[in-house]
Amino acid sequence: MAMRSPLSHAVKRATWKSPATPVLSPCTQRWKRGNATVAPPPVTQSSAGSKGPTAMVFMNMGGPSTTDEVHGFLNNLFSDADLIPLGRLQNYIGPYIARRRTPKIQKQYAEIGGGSPIRKWSEYQAAEMCKILDQTSPETAPHKPYVAFRYANPLTEQMYQQLLADGFGGGKGGRAVAFTQYPQYSCSTTGSSLNELWKWRQRLEGKRAGGEVDAEGSIKWSVIDRWPTHSGLVEAFAQNIEKTLQEYPPERRDDVVLLYSAHSLPMTVVNRGDPYPQEVAATVHAVNQRLGMKYKYRLVWQSQVGPQPWLGAQTSDTVKNLMKKGNTDLILIPIAFTSDHIETLYELDKEVIGEDAEGHEGVKRVESLNGNPIFIQGLADIAKAHLHSGVACSKQMTLRCPGCVSERCLGSKEFFAGQNQLLEPLAA
Amino acid sequence: MAMRSPLSHAVKRATWKSPATPVLSPCTQRWKRGNATVAPPPVTQSSAGSKGPTAMVFMNMGGPSTTDEVHGFLNNLFSDADLIPLGRLQNYIGPYIARRRTPKIQKQYAEIGGGSPIRKWSEYQAAEMCKILDQTSPETAPHKPYVAFRYANPLTEQMYQQLLADGFGGGKGGRAVAFTQYPQYSCSTTGSSLNELWKWRQRLEGKRAGGEVDAEGSIKWSVIDRWPTHSGLVEAFAQNIEKTLQEYPPERRDDVVLLYSAHSLPMTVVNRGDPYPQEVAATVHAVNQRLGMKYKYRLVWQSQVGPQPWLGAQTSDTVKNLMKKGNTDLILIPIAFTSDHIETLYELDKEVIGEDAEGHEGVKRVESLNGNPIFIQGLADIAKAHLHSGVACSKQMTLRCPGCVSERCLGSKEFFAGQNQLLEPLAA
Repeated sequence: MAMRSPLSHAVKRATWKSPATPVLSPCTQRWKRGNATVAPPPVTQSSAGSKGPTAMVFMNMGGPSTTDEVHGFLNNLFSDADLIPLGRLQNYIGPYIARRRTPKIQKQYAEIGGGSPIRKWSEYQAAEMCKILDQTSPETAPHKPYVAFRYANPLTEQMYQQLLADGFGGGKGGRAVAFTQYPQYSCSTTGSSLNELWKWRQRLEGKRAGGEVDAEGSIKWSVIDRWPTHSGLVEAFAQNIEKTLQEYPPERRDDVVLLYSAHSLPMTVVNRGDPYPQEVAATVHAVNQRLGMKYKYRLVWQSQVGPQPWLGAQTSDTVKNLMKKGNTDLILIPIAFTSDHIETLYELDKEVIGEDAEGHEGVKRVESLNGNPIFIQGLADIAKAHLHSGVACSKQMTLRCPGCVSERCLGSKEFFAGQNQLLEPLAA
Repeated sequence: MAMRSPLSHAVKRATWKSPATPVLSPCTQRWKRGNATVAPPPVTQSSAGSKGPTAMVFMNMGGPSTTDEVHGFLNNLFSDADLIPLGRLQNYIGPYIARRRTPKIQKQYAEIGGGSPIRKWSEYQAAEMCKILDQTSPETAPHKPYVAFRYANPLTEQMYQQLLADGFGGGKGGRAVAFTQYPQYSCSTTGSSLNELWKWRQRLEGKRAGGEVDAEGSIKWSVIDRWPTHSGLVEAFAQNIEKTLQEYPPERRDDVVLLYSAHSLPMTVVNRGDPYPQEVAATVHAVNQRLGMKYKYRLVWQSQVGPQPWLGAQTSDTVKNLMKKGNTDLILIPIAFTSDHIETLYELDKEVIGEDAEGHEGVKRVESLNGNPIFIQGLADIAKAHLHSGVACSKQMTLRCPGCVSERCLGSKEFFAGQNQLLEPLAA
């Protein structure tokens, strides 16, 4: 990664300058909301007292929408040193592993309907949230939904190009929010997406942001970097659990075990101080509190791969062990992902429930949040509070992991924290 | 452990019988509260509408009060297969390790004043809580404080003998609450204490409880098994942190990093599904929420020993790494222990602050809860809610760890959960 040092210097130059008065010009390009093509609102912070338009960018890992996209997806995934650090040979080993795994993973996607629904859900969630925000936060309206995936289309680069085409940045300034769709922060998920966003911002707006041309014309970014215990998220999970509990006969209901399952992390990531395990645990606690602490439960971890040690207990082992002990009424709750994807539809439904539990009728999975209106209202509440706070990111995001040695993380965090100086709080 | 099976059978016989009407006789023995020797109230559930007296038993690991007690303490510690499983040779290897480590540990206790203050604090906390309870819960008064340590005096056996001497059990029935002083549940801490309590209950009341003589005359037990996010605990921690923050100049205060430090667990315990990491994380989240999420923080883990992998990031490494990165204002918060002990006074103060941080003035530790009145009021609130619930233990305690193979845990959990049938809820 030869880019590390120059970028790190560039962002330092770009970031720590004093706040500037925006000099923005209106945008006349056309953009789409749903099926209707309409003239975009001018990108200006001064017209009619509105701070909008505001680009709301949903960040997530993404997934291949068709089996043809599987290879590209895996290639991106195994090339990501923030997710799977393979050292200096990353660019050779990554593609090799991706090629090797493609047929097997294609088969899995074929079994869940030919592709991941995550793009469909992300676009829906972002669009619906923006509709709510237009009502609840007129000061920052109109809100324009974007999706930026880390490993599948639309990739971060595509999203950024679209932003520019839509009249954000490129000399016209404008305001964008990077809204992670991972409720809990990990350097290997949200951190990686932010590093990617920062990279493309430098590539596509670097000269401008560096002050070589029209420094004020680049996009002002802020980040919603975590929301593990937001009431909308907690309520949506709790209601889905209650709904699934209703499927058991009343006399069995009180003894059902809730298994909150999150994607695991390698212990190397846990031990360098990644905040994810702590935040996932906080979500679990909040949902249990909302349920009145009435049920037995465990937080378990899924999707471990390879020979290295990962954080446990493993979801698969847990289900097998509990069933052996006589706990055959189990509800699986995917607690760290908000849309259906291969880890729910294939790994939990087919492998854990279908194979480990041999399809036992007592072992069920709650619906994913997907189009859940309580959840989407929650996203809008989070976004509104963020937009009105005038804060570029959480205080917690500014602390690197104690054991982190990544220059990307350093530069990215400095960039986003530095945007703080460009933002102004709105009256609540 | 040849006792496992007979005990397991005994408890099954004892536990799962139907509720019985207590036939209790008054107790005429004398007992002490503070310095005054007074006639004990009759141990009866029917006199004057009171459900008292109630024995409130504070359970904790304990520590040697003098350096002479260090060897016995370590001997008990390394003989505990719930804490440090050493296999079939436990009774030989445990004492050997204890002997080997005694001189080094004696030196550490000498450096912190010649012994652990945990007995002093536990006795004070229990007595003060009982005074509050006598006012707030007259229905269960009088409340009599006891302390049962797992590895130091007063050991569980001593406590149980004292209970019997004071007129609880032994044909007279009576009500006792095992109140863990570990806010978060681990099988190696609270679980081990409960297994020990169950063992001595079987040994000292087994025949009676087994129905061979006067089945109703044994003590009715219930358990306060965890309280990771109780508001009293959270408030006491938060106020101590705010007090320590005041020691920094105002311009440095906002950038202080909070390091919540808990005793670590071996990964073998984490991976079998021990609930402790999740619950410690919940405490951390609750305290941060109370502080308005205003500070950077990490949950870190201390006291790892031996060559096996333990849960990280390690407290010691974290402090060194963060200081290298320029974060030299750090507050250490012992988040899983409520009294001072060797892990705060020696490990954090002398090793982490004194050695790892080289005594840097920016690295501080918050006061332990010890005699904190907000904390003690919180304990009384927890106890009152428990006494009035009519519930023998949390729902969560009835679920064994998925990977657990301990017969002790099975029997102990069955016993305490089974007590549920003997309790009656009180009007709130």
